[in-house]
Amino acid sequence: MSNGAINRPESGWRSRLHEIIFESDTRAGRIFNIILSLAIVLSVIAVLLDSVHSIRDRFGTLLFIIEWFFTILFTVEYILRLLSLRQPRRYAVSFFGIVDLLAIVPTYFSLIFPGAMYFLSFRILRLLRIFRVLKLSEYLRDAQIIVNALLASRRKIGVFLLTVLLLSVIMGSLIYVVEGEQNGYTSIPTSIYWAIVTMTTVGYGDLAPQTPLGKMLASVIMILGYAIIAVPTGIVTVEMSRSQIRRVSTQACPDCGAEGHDPDARFCKYCGGVL
Amino acid sequence: MSNGAINRPESGWRSRLHEIIFESDTRAGRIFNIILSLAIVLSVIAVLLDSVHSIRDRFGTLLFIIEWFFTILFTVEYILRLLSLRQPRRYAVSFFGIVDLLAIVPTYFSLIFPGAMYFLSFRILRLLRIFRVLKLSEYLRDAQIIVNALLASRRKIGVFLLTVLLLSVIMGSLIYVVEGEQNGYTSIPTSIYWAIVTMTTVGYGDLAPQTPLGKMLASVIMILGYAIIAVPTGIVTVEMSRSQIRRVSTQACPDCGAEGHDPDARFCKYCGGVL
Amino acid sequence: MSNGAINRPESGWRSRLHEIIFESDTRAGRIFNIILSLAIVLSVIAVLLDSVHSIRDRFGTLLFIIEWFFTILFTVEYILRLLSLRQPRRYAVSFFGIVDLLAIVPTYFSLIFPGAMYFLSFRILRLLRIFRVLKLSEYLRDAQIIVNALLASRRKIGVFLLTVLLLSVIMGSLIYVVEGEQNGYTSIPTSIYWAIVTMTTVGYGDLAPQTPLGKMLASVIMILGYAIIAVPTGIVTVEMSRSQIRRVSTQACPDCGAEGHDPDARFCKYCGGVL
Amino acid sequence: MSNGAINRPESGWRSRLHEIIFESDTRAGRIFNIILSLAIVLSVIAVLLDSVHSIRDRFGTLLFIIEWFFTILFTVEYILRLLSLRQPRRYAVSFFGIVDLLAIVPTYFSLIFPGAMYFLSFRILRLLRIFRVLKLSEYLRDAQIIVNALLASRRKIGVFLLTVLLLSVIMGSLIYVVEGEQNGYTSIPTSIYWAIVTMTTVGYGDLAPQTPLGKMLASVIMILGYAIIAVPTGIVTVEMSRSQIRRVSTQACPDCGAEGHDPDARFCKYCGGVL
Repeated sequence: MSNGAINRPESGWRSRLHEIIFESDTRAGRIFNIILSLAIVLSVIAVLLDSVHSIRDRFGTLLFIIEWFFTILFTVEYILRLLSLRQPRRYAVSFFGIVDLLAIVPTYFSLIFPGAMYFLSFRILRLLRIFRVLKLSEYLRDAQIIVNALLASRRKIGVFLLTVLLLSVIMGSLIYVVEGEQNGYTSIPTSIYWAIVTMTTVGYGDLAPQTPLGKMLASVIMILGYAIIAVPTGIVTVEMSRSQIRRVSTQACPDCGAEGHDPDARFCKYCGGVL
Repeated sequence: MSNGAINRPESGWRSRLHEIIFESDTRAGRIFNIILSLAIVLSVIAVLLDSVHSIRDRFGTLLFIIEWFFTILFTVEYILRLLSLRQPRRYAVSFFGIVDLLAIVPTYFSLIFPGAMYFLSFRILRLLRIFRVLKLSEYLRDAQIIVNALLASRRKIGVFLLTVLLLSVIMGSLIYVVEGEQNGYTSIPTSIYWAIVTMTTVGYGDLAPQTPLGKMLASVIMILGYAIIAVPTGIVTVEMSRSQIRRVSTQACPDCGAEGHDPDARFCKYCGGVL
Repeated sequence: MSNGAINRPESGWRSRLHEIIFESDTRAGRIFNIILSLAIVLSVIAVLLDSVHSIRDRFGTLLFIIEWFFTILFTVEYILRLLSLRQPRRYAVSFFGIVDLLAIVPTYFSLIFPGAMYFLSFRILRLLRIFRVLKLSEYLRDAQIIVNALLASRRKIGVFLLTVLLLSVIMGSLIYVVEGEQNGYTSIPTSIYWAIVTMTTVGYGDLAPQTPLGKMLASVIMILGYAIIAVPTGIVTVEMSRSQIRRVSTQACPDCGAEGHDPDARFCKYCGGVL
Repeated sequence: MSNGAINRPESGWRSRLHEIIFESDTRAGRIFNIILSLAIVLSVIAVLLDSVHSIRDRFGTLLFIIEWFFTILFTVEYILRLLSLRQPRRYAVSFFGIVDLLAIVPTYFSLIFPGAMYFLSFRILRLLRIFRVLKLSEYLRDAQIIVNALLASRRKIGVFLLTVLLLSVIMGSLIYVVEGEQNGYTSIPTSIYWAIVTMTTVGYGDLAPQTPLGKMLASVIMILGYAIIAVPTGIVTVEMSRSQIRRVSTQACPDCGAEGHDPDARFCKYCGGVL
């Protein structure tokens, strides 16, 4: 995310362009980025509306024009972004560089494959930049805490997901044998899909056990799913609490050496010495 | 909520009226507020029953009379509330002032738009006042702890909700392309609705993937939704535990008056004075 | 639960009977209670099977005999329980006394109201006694921790449930106005039921929004329900963690007065003095 | 899991074979185990595909050959495992010994009972070994934390599950009486199944209450299920946090050798010796 900052050119029109597009310290930059955010939201709404039959029938041409208008706008913006950087390649392969590119290519692709246009809703990912651009630093920090907690628990979550997957495969195979094709469980993959639907407590009901044995097995899966939701919750809660509770100062008392002072402490709470 | 208390007139009939309507320290005030709470519950039940065909067919006239009876009662009460305050405008724009108004206007509106009457069930919000009025201070404090935890984590919850929304838009667009209109995913907005139904593990089943690829994508969304429920849970748990576990000493520093010392502190962490 | 213990007669056949029925310290008492538990499970299974058409058609008479056999057995046992106590009334109005009575009366009632028999499945509550009777003290203690955490957070859970109820009433009224009777939302009570089904993420799908506005409202309710599940979870987690983490000894060091020692500490960890 | 390590033969071809099959310290062992993992995944995919009608119709013979190829491969591997150990019986009755056997017998059984083949998907459990074999020690440790937390809370979870079961039986009986057979609740076992579907918030919708009283009862069950999910979550979270937050000092007492001292301890809490 700080890609733009490091990659900043030193002076001239490039520097000015960079300031407007990548930063929002100046008034021009702030206005540019707010307008850009609005344009993103509007263009995504246009894509969504375009997929609704009754609306496309009436406003199809208008939506078509809007779509191309925003695509050309974002294309120009993308080129300007590349031009404003000393090392455009670094931006182009960064997360936001790829998102910015994905926000325009579907329209061009749609000339060949009409369905491609619906991928334009990926544009909405561009909004993630909004926190940094609008200097919503408190939101950024809180988002960081969440991301850190998830990163810190990524291995545990991985182990959990693998367990859920193995359980789904086994439970899906069992229900396939128990219920059989006459009750809608037409194949093991379909049955695994059902096991996932059940274990995550989604429960569409497009497939539901019919036999007594199948219902007993389903009950076991449901209670299992209901109980193991506790595992990721426990993992994330513990990680979050760890990253937050430990907000103690790292400073030791120069007199008695005691540690664990609050960040706002100016005197040692054990010996009264100045910190 | 303490709006009434600050806004209290000093003496005379206004003060007396205020005491009865806004407080429940006196016997009259207590009786008034208990009767008012009962009236609210009864009037909401009347609205609910009025919407049931078989009941309206038989008791329609009775319910009509009851509805107008309570509306006039609450209107009189609303006017008395305004009269009993020195600054009625402050009350009128407060949360409970608006709720009290919303509890009566729908009946008058229903003279023009019959459907407006069903908004009368908003009256039930008036019950929120019950904790303060009946001096259920322990409930109030516990409610405050919950509200504080939610307020303290409002930014994190905001980030989480934005993420859920972005994921829904992207997943909805993907399933729309994968499943298509022949399987019920008639538009991207509808598909986004389905993605939300799936990610929150509600799973109505009015729409469910039919193709193998759609089922795989749905499985990913389900497991995602099943796992990320851990995030708000973790956020709120940590906030609640922080507000509760942090049992700071109630002792104020005799020198500088600072509070919020750790229970094991022997010296003030701000001025170094002996506690 | 310790009702039996306090109420114990001093000697004679009563004391002996009490020892067998209420306690399991003696071999006879242990055997009696294990057999009783088995009888409870068997009789409940008989009730369940009796409700299945195909089984009742074939084994109806057998199940009828079994049902009466167990009912007479439990009736004799109930009378013996009353006889073995000095203050039988105290037992009769206790939780287990009422459960024991409810476990037999439905059969007698079924002579008049055939449907009453299905309430016999309440017998299963008698199994709750099993932990105490079989001296599963570790389970008892853990159950106590859960119960304590729930009791300690009863007010917070009450506030939470009231909020869920108010939200359901309001959301149900809104969806009733938005979707209307032509889409299955035939009355406000039905719509409130739908709001509860949605907010708790159950999502039967017997009722689902059809209009775009209804789907938007449903999305809000779903995300709301998905997020506020965090509240009871946070409440209970914090209560449980509080009751468990605080397992420190209450003993202060006689030398330096330091507290917070582990329960198994024999020497002060700060000054080395004998505790 | 460390079964192989203890059971290791001292030298000769057995030792060499053991090194390759059970360990992955050597290059040969690493390659063997990676290929084995791939073979497991491939063979499970073959089983899943074989259950899909359209695929079996076209590639049935090929899948049949693949299935037997992997079965013979795993059979040879199983025999080699037995041969490479000094105490093969110990391996044969261990968790992974049984899983390895279950991964081959269904194919042989399928010669007599064709359906047996679908149990081959149990093979996927063999993947659990992958963490140890590939020396993913961090994953192993994190998995251990989860398993420990679940083990430590097994009694509490047991109490919780028993409660859920009792509630399901009682709620199922009640809804059976309330809704009756004309609304699909054809027997108490079916109604208990519905109660579990509802309480775990799965909500298939294959069965849903029709009467007002049934809907009220269902609402109670839903809110109950929605709230008590907090219990296992709280249990697991507290256990996890305890096992992680309790960062005991790694220092052993130089006098008595006792471990497990608090990080801030200066004296051994067992013998009073200076740490």
